[in-house]
This record gives sequence, structure tokens and C-alpha cells, in this order.
Amino acid sequence: MYPLPDGLFAARNQWYIAAWSEEVSRNPMERWILDEPVALYRKENGEAVALEGRCPHRGFPLGKSRVVGDNVQCGYHGITFHSDGSCAAIPSQPAIPAACRLKAYPLVEQWKWLWIWMGDPALADESLIPHEDELGLTDGDHVIASGGYDLVAGRYMLLHDNLFDLTHVGYLHMPNIGAGGGAQDTVPEIRTGPNWISSLYTQRNVDIPQFFSRLQNHTGKVDRLQGLKLFLPCLHMGGSQIFLPQGEDGRPGKRLGSLRVYHGVTPATRDSSHYFFAIGQSWSDDPAASQELFDYNRRSTFQEDMMATECIEEMIQKMGGRLSEILVKADVACVTGRRMFERMIRAELSADTADRGTLTTTG
Amino acid sequence: MYPLPDGLFAARNQWYIAAWSEEVSRNPMERWILDEPVALYRKENGEAVALEGRCPHRGFPLGKSRVVGDNVQCGYHGITFHSDGSCAAIPSQPAIPAACRLKAYPLVEQWKWLWIWMGDPALADESLIPHEDELGLTDGDHVIASGGYDLVAGRYMLLHDNLFDLTHVGYLHMPNIGAGGGAQDTVPEIRTGPNWISSLYTQRNVDIPQFFSRLQNHTGKVDRLQGLKLFLPCLHMGGSQIFLPQGEDGRPGKRLGSLRVYHGVTPATRDSSHYFFAIGQSWSDDPAASQELFDYNRRSTFQEDMMATECIEEMIQKMGGRLSEILVKADVACVTGRRMFERMIRAELSADTADRGTLTTTG
Amino acid sequence: MYPLPDGLFAARNQWYIAAWSEEVSRNPMERWILDEPVALYRKENGEAVALEGRCPHRGFPLGKSRVVGDNVQCGYHGITFHSDGSCAAIPSQPAIPAACRLKAYPLVEQWKWLWIWMGDPALADESLIPHEDELGLTDGDHVIASGGYDLVAGRYMLLHDNLFDLTHVGYLHMPNIGAGGGAQDTVPEIRTGPNWISSLYTQRNVDIPQFFSRLQNHTGKVDRLQGLKLFLPCLHMGGSQIFLPQGEDGRPGKRLGSLRVYHGVTPATRDSSHYFFAIGQSWSDDPAASQELFDYNRRSTFQEDMMATECIEEMIQKMGGRLSEILVKADVACVTGRRMFERMIRAELSADTADRGTLTTTG
Repeated sequence: MYPLPDGLFAARNQWYIAAWSEEVSRNPMERWILDEPVALYRKENGEAVALEGRCPHRGFPLGKSRVVGDNVQCGYHGITFHSDGSCAAIPSQPAIPAACRLKAYPLVEQWKWLWIWMGDPALADESLIPHEDELGLTDGDHVIASGGYDLVAGRYMLLHDNLFDLTHVGYLHMPNIGAGGGAQDTVPEIRTGPNWISSLYTQRNVDIPQFFSRLQNHTGKVDRLQGLKLFLPCLHMGGSQIFLPQGEDGRPGKRLGSLRVYHGVTPATRDSSHYFFAIGQSWSDDPAASQELFDYNRRSTFQEDMMATECIEEMIQKMGGRLSEILVKADVACVTGRRMFERMIRAELSADTADRGTLTTTG
Repeated sequence: MYPLPDGLFAARNQWYIAAWSEEVSRNPMERWILDEPVALYRKENGEAVALEGRCPHRGFPLGKSRVVGDNVQCGYHGITFHSDGSCAAIPSQPAIPAACRLKAYPLVEQWKWLWIWMGDPALADESLIPHEDELGLTDGDHVIASGGYDLVAGRYMLLHDNLFDLTHVGYLHMPNIGAGGGAQDTVPEIRTGPNWISSLYTQRNVDIPQFFSRLQNHTGKVDRLQGLKLFLPCLHMGGSQIFLPQGEDGRPGKRLGSLRVYHGVTPATRDSSHYFFAIGQSWSDDPAASQELFDYNRRSTFQEDMMATECIEEMIQKMGGRLSEILVKADVACVTGRRMFERMIRAELSADTADRGTLTTTG
Repeated sequence: MYPLPDGLFAARNQWYIAAWSEEVSRNPMERWILDEPVALYRKENGEAVALEGRCPHRGFPLGKSRVVGDNVQCGYHGITFHSDGSCAAIPSQPAIPAACRLKAYPLVEQWKWLWIWMGDPALADESLIPHEDELGLTDGDHVIASGGYDLVAGRYMLLHDNLFDLTHVGYLHMPNIGAGGGAQDTVPEIRTGPNWISSLYTQRNVDIPQFFSRLQNHTGKVDRLQGLKLFLPCLHMGGSQIFLPQGEDGRPGKRLGSLRVYHGVTPATRDSSHYFFAIGQSWSDDPAASQELFDYNRRSTFQEDMMATECIEEMIQKMGGRLSEILVKADVACVTGRRMFERMIRAELSADTADRGTLTTTG
């Protein structure tokens, strides 16, 4: 489905952010992920659990049910499931039919996120989750404010499209972080790895953005580096740094300040997405400074990104599900990134077909 | 459609509760029944009328029109219909085309309900309506509070599913009538007749439910009988009785109290339903005691039943209209009851086919 | 689609009212017309512009973007378009791909309306727009209050149906302008031209409508003329005049008063419409008198017309998109008018086919 080719939605054998750690408690929570209902809760020892969120008996949502000990008990007729998805009890009978069980999704808590694996559990390799060190969450260089969450009424690839093309900063975010300069006149340098893609925008000798200027009480020309690195399929790590202009010798000027922004994008249903965000800054050890920055962007930048996503989703729906488009130079990351998503999904579909082939051969 | 086989919705040659008597007045009311618009109003002599709710001229809803004498006059262009559905007047012409008429639905007022027959009027036999004596509405044993109504955003069979399986009492209604004991550990005894099915749950020597305990100021062990009898296709009559434990001689103990609950379930559209309810009690002649019970359950038990129904409807819609399910012993009434609905609908479809066969033969 | 034959929606090579002049400013406005998004704004010299409202890059709505000079700049990534639809700038590249342009719709400001041509610009002939003199807007006989606008949740032909058949005045508008008499007992005299249809209702020696009676402090019998003239496809000009009864010599009595009502109906999407209205009266030079009349009807008559339209749209949707209907004598304008719409759309489709035929022949 747009902007991917017809029939392609999302890869399943991947880690996605399911929730902020702090969102999941002893009260189960319902969250749709990859068009499936998931029930999230914590066991008595605090360990988080992700189970199929639909009772196989009558379809009642387990995310609207209750936790008893380490089990989840359906809020309708009381059928109870262990945290591994097996059935613990059926009130009216001692026998447990084989079909009476829930999918249990591998779930890993890392930093402040819960990462879920919606595909084949046998393939769930924790080492594929972007590590908190790799993400710059542990280097002490930035103080992070976290916990941003919104359910966005738009398909997940539109949020990736948004992040792939930072020329939007100078326009969509003109009233706030875009004012005073942006990435709008540059084409980024793209790099890719097996499961990541990064884009870097370099601007020399431009006006300091009003946003930085105000925060750091500095005026005049600066060099600016902005970039994003997406760890497929879910997490964008973004940075924005301001330097004094480089000298004639080409050596970089002094760094005036640095921002880090984290955007988690998880498909909820086919036309809605979970959006997780955090933001950090380098210039103050005071968490209140980060929180102020977070609050400011939650009210402005992130709202604008979601507005654009939802406007385009609405346009797609009104146009009957399709949207013609033209590509420009600034879309280099977008084009490359979409192809990576497409390859990732197709590889999974081919593997499924190969599996079935094997089964047929041996059958 | 789920939970019935594909293509089966609801039987038409049956009596359904269309409304509470008190809902229908000289101002017409629109109510969708079996996916058709119906206009309900009263004639000058008080007799209630049910007509097709769509003007054949331009489709304006007659349930949003006005009554003139015993007729309904379309609120758009004034075409007027007698209470038998025939056209009384067309403002712009004296001639009345044959097609300018409304279906008139047989409508019977019994106890406080208006029963409607949506199918072939020639088959409408009033004696098929469950009689108020049979329903225990006239025996004076219980004081009834009535008039409960809600439009539920879920298909009607989900409300029947709810009532077929009382194990839900101990879970869905745990915070109120389920507390202190329930039907959850028993499989009911099922009985069926040509157009009814009953389930009876017997619990010996269990804790008195908190609900009864509080109302009757009694503590300790009791015997409990709960049951429901559905008069297909529409009305469930439920009872819940508490006794002192039976003696060693097997003779029942003294009855401490008894509740009666009436649930009317009428298909509105394919995915919404009308829900009518009333409740009565045996321990006080004061109607205020029944009204308090009614108000309590309207705020709690009935809300929970509707919440479960609407959650499952939403789940079905999100799953693309289908829901796989497993059956457990507690589903004995559900399985039997669904089959009765299926047979009832199929019999009607077969009769239609047979009719057409006859017509062809004689034609 | 109903009430037109299947597959017919609306003619494109026609002038439609897009907006009131006063609605369009230097801030762009989004308005869907004929199921297409349109961005409306004014250039620095005040000239109004209508452009395709979807950026060809990523589909962001240009009606939610910003105007820079005489251009519109996409609010997402800053691609900028001249008022003729050609691309002025792409931030990341100097080259402008041929496909990077917007449709520019011919737009004409006449009286207080902006008229848009959604079809082939080469065919846009301003002389086809009903002239303000022809519309009685310049004769000084009536003082007009204008600016009425609503988005109606119903297909545009239902609003035309409403205006084609004034028998609705005596019923739908019974509480206000219908009280005391109406067109309900007469069949109108119909006249048609190449692109217009008029209906005239004459009533002799009827009670003065309460509405006029109150406004003009007059009681007793009157002659009443009511009529509407539709300039296809969009604008109805209506009139309602009250005279003292004509004498035995057949000469008309003194005119007591006259109303003029203008209804603009423009398809928004397939099931919604823009409704523009204005109203004028002859008996007072005080604009406040017209404004009072306008406000009164905005709260009553127009609300009733929209309510009827939305009720019927909802009925159509619930009936699966189709509505059977019967026709009565009062439908003479409706039948004739619908056929004119049908012919207009079919002529356009034939011309398209002929064009393609030519292209094939010469190709």
C-alpha cells in the first residue's frame, strides 16, 4: 500500500517499540500493533509480557481484562492464560483444548522502551535491537527527556517519509525550529548499512536558527549539521548541532550546542501509527532544561509532523487509496529508505514461500 | 454473518420488541428494525401503529414527520398515509398510484411492550408472543421496574451470546452482581422447546453474593439457582434465587430472595441492536426497592454487557468481519441457541423458495 | 449515482460557485469541489486564484499552506507554485520537472461570488455565468443580504431536488414560511431554456402567509406567485410575491411585497455539497430588514432544507446507495431538471469520447 508497492504493509520479523516502560503496569493495556491486538502487562516480578490481545473463546480484548498473579484472566468469561500464552484455566471444564492459547510475543525491555517481535519467535534475536550505547543514550553528552507518545491517524510509512526528508524543517516547522534557517536548500549525504540509513545535512555560514539563538543567547553566522539515522524498521535517532563557522584551514569551529531527538514509529493498524518521542540537549545538566525543550516540541514540532501525516492520510483516503507523486533531489533518503522497507518485507515473504516449499517437499 | 453462518442475518417472520409502550406517542418515532426504517406512532384512540419509515416519494423518514389525525404526513412534501399504509393524499394530484403505499407491520401491545412482525403479515400469529402470564409478569411474586432501553453498537447475536453463557457473571460483573460467587464453575442444565431454550445453573452451599447479602442483611452459605429462558427470537427471562442450604433430606431450604430480569434483544441494523430491560424483586412490595435495583443495574451490569458486546463488535470489524473461536463446556446453551437461530432463519428461507416454486408451477 | 443514473456524478465543463468573495483572502483556503481538492487565495493585487489543492510531491494540502507574494508555497517541503499552476521553485534542486505543476482553474469574480470552472480551461466561457443583471441583483428593487454558507452532508442533486419541488414549502417549512398557505396544492408551470429551467406556482385568493402578514401588517386574502429559476448547474434564483387579489377584470392587484432568494449548490464530494444562500426583500430600504430576514431563514428554512437533504442522504447510505421512488405531478420540474443534468453530463462524456476518437484517428 502507498507509499510502498501494492500488497506490502510491514515486516513482521523485526523489533518494534511497543510502549514506553512506564506505560505498562499490572493493569493490562490494549495496543494494536501490525494490525493485531496486543495485551501488555507486568508480572508480579515486574517483567513485562506481551500476549495476543484477543481471547480465543469469544474475542473479548484481553487488554481490557485483568491480571491475576502472573496470568491474564479474560474479563468476559474468565478463561485464564499464563504469561507464555498457554491456557491456565477454563472455568467450566478441566480439559484445555490445544487451540485455547494465545500467541506470546517476544518482548525486551531496553533503556525505557519495550521492544516487541510480532513475527516468528524462533527468529527473535535481541542483538538486533539498537543498543542504548549505539543510540547515544548512555554517553552522558545529552540529558534526555522522554515519554512522548501519540496515536497518529496515518499509516506508518508517512511518518518515515516525514523523517527521511528534512527539507520539511524549514517549511512545516517554520514557526518554531525552522525559523532562521533550515535544511531546505541542501541535499543530504546518505549512507546505508544492512539495517540502517542515515542522512546528513551540512550548512556552512548560515544564520543561527532563532530557536538556538534564544536558547544559547548567541547571534551571528554558524555552521549547522543536522542528520537522522534510522534503525529499521522503527527508530530514528536525530541530531542537530551548531558550531562557530569553520576556519579557513577547514577545521571545525567550537560546538555551541547539540540536540538529539528520538522518534519511534510503530504500525498500529493499516492506517494508524504509534509515535514515540524523546529529546535531549547538551548545554545544561538540568533535566528541567530538557523537559522544557521536550514540552515546547511536543506542543509544536511533533504536532506539526502529525498534522502533516494525518492530512496526507486523509488525502489518500479521499483519493481512493492512491496518490501520484513526483520525486525531487531532497527525496534521496526517502527513495532509498522506502526501497529498504520494500526489500525487508519482500525478503520475509520469500522466506515464507521457501518455508512452504520445504514443507511441501518433505510432506 | 458471525456468529451465524455466512449469509444469515435474522428471521423476519417472528415477533420482536419494537419499543416500550411509553416510548410511542402522537409524535412519530423512527426506529430501525431488521435493517429497515420503521415509523411508530399512536392513533387518536391510542392504538399504536408501525409503518415503513421511508416515504416512497423521496425517501424522507416518516419517523421524523408528523401525525395528522390517524395518518402520518410526510414532513417533506406532505404525502399522507393511513395507518394501514395506504396513501390518503398526494398534495399535487387526486390520483393515487398503486406503488404509493407503505408496508404496515403487524403490531401488538402486550404488557408494556410493542411487538412487531417484520415479515409476511399473513403469518403474524399473536399467540406466538410470549404471554405475560408465562413470563411471570402477572403472578404478583415480583415487583417489576421497567423501561430500560439502549441502542447497542453491536450485532444482536452478540447480546444473545452474552445471555446464553452466564459464566460471564462471575467475571464481567465481578465488581457488582458477580462478587461473592457466580455461575462460573458450573455447566448449566439445558432444556429446549420448539421456540425456547432455557439454561439453569445450580450452586449448592456457596457464599451468598455480596449483592444479596447487602440487600437482605444475611451472611453465610446458601444454595443458588440462576437461569435464563429465551423465547426466540427476542426475549430472555432470567431469574436468580437464593435459598438456605438444602437439608440432608434433599428438601430445599427457605427461599431468601428472588430476582427476575427481562432482556429484549431486537436487531436494529446488521451491526447494532435495541436492548430493552426490566428487573424485579420478591422481597419488598415497595416499587422504590425495584427501581433502586433497576437503577443500580442500569449503571453497572447492563453497561458491562453492552461494553463487552461493543468491544467484540469492534474486534470483529477490525478483524475484517470474521472471528475464529473455540467452544468450551459453558457454551452448551450458546451452541444450542445459535443452532436454533440458524434453523429458524433457514426454515424461513426454504419456505420462501418453496413459495416461489409454487408460484412458478401455478403461473 | 442516485438520483441520476448509475455512473453519472456531475458535469465538469460548467461554472460553479466556489466561494463567497469575502471568504477568500491572502491565507489560502481548502475547498473540495467535484471531488477534487482546491486551494483558493488572493494575489497581492487582490485577484483570486484557484489551484489544484494537492502538492504533486507528497500530497500535502495547499489549502493548508501559505501564500508568498503571488505564489503558494507548500507548507510541507516548500515547493512553490505560481498562480498559473507552474512551479516556481523546488528547494533542493534548480530543475523543475514537467510533472511538477498544478491544475489552475479558471476563476471569475462576479457580484459577490467566485465562479470556478473545473473542466477543460479552453472551454471556459465567462459569458456562460449568469449575469448579475439577469439575476436581479442590480435593479435596486430588492435589498439583498448575502454570505450564507454551509457544507451539507448530502449529494448535490438532493439540494436541487429540494428546490425543484416547492410543494415542500407547505410541509417542511410549515413552522415558518409555509404557515398560512403554500404551493402544496398546485402543479407549477414549467419553462426551460438551453441551460435553465423555471417553475412558477400561482395561487389565487389564498390566505396571506403568516410570515408576510406579520412583516407587512396585513391580513386577508391575497394572490401569491412563487417561482424558481435554475441556471444550470448551480444557481437557483427564487421569488415569492404577494398581491391583493386580482379584480374581476383579470388585472393583477397591488403588489404588497416581494422576496428574492438565491441558492448556490456546488458538489463538494460525491456525498457532500456546498450551499450558498442570499435573500432580499422589496419593502424596506434598510439593510437591517434584509439582514433580519436572512438571519431568520438561516436559522429556520435553510436548516430545514439541509436537514431533509442529510436525512435522505443517510437513508440512501443505509439502503446501500439506492432508493426506489415514485413520481407525482409536483415532480414535473424535478423530472425535467434531472434530465437536463443527465443530458449535460452525457454530452460532456460523449465529447470526451469524440475527442479520443479524433486523437486515435490522427495518431
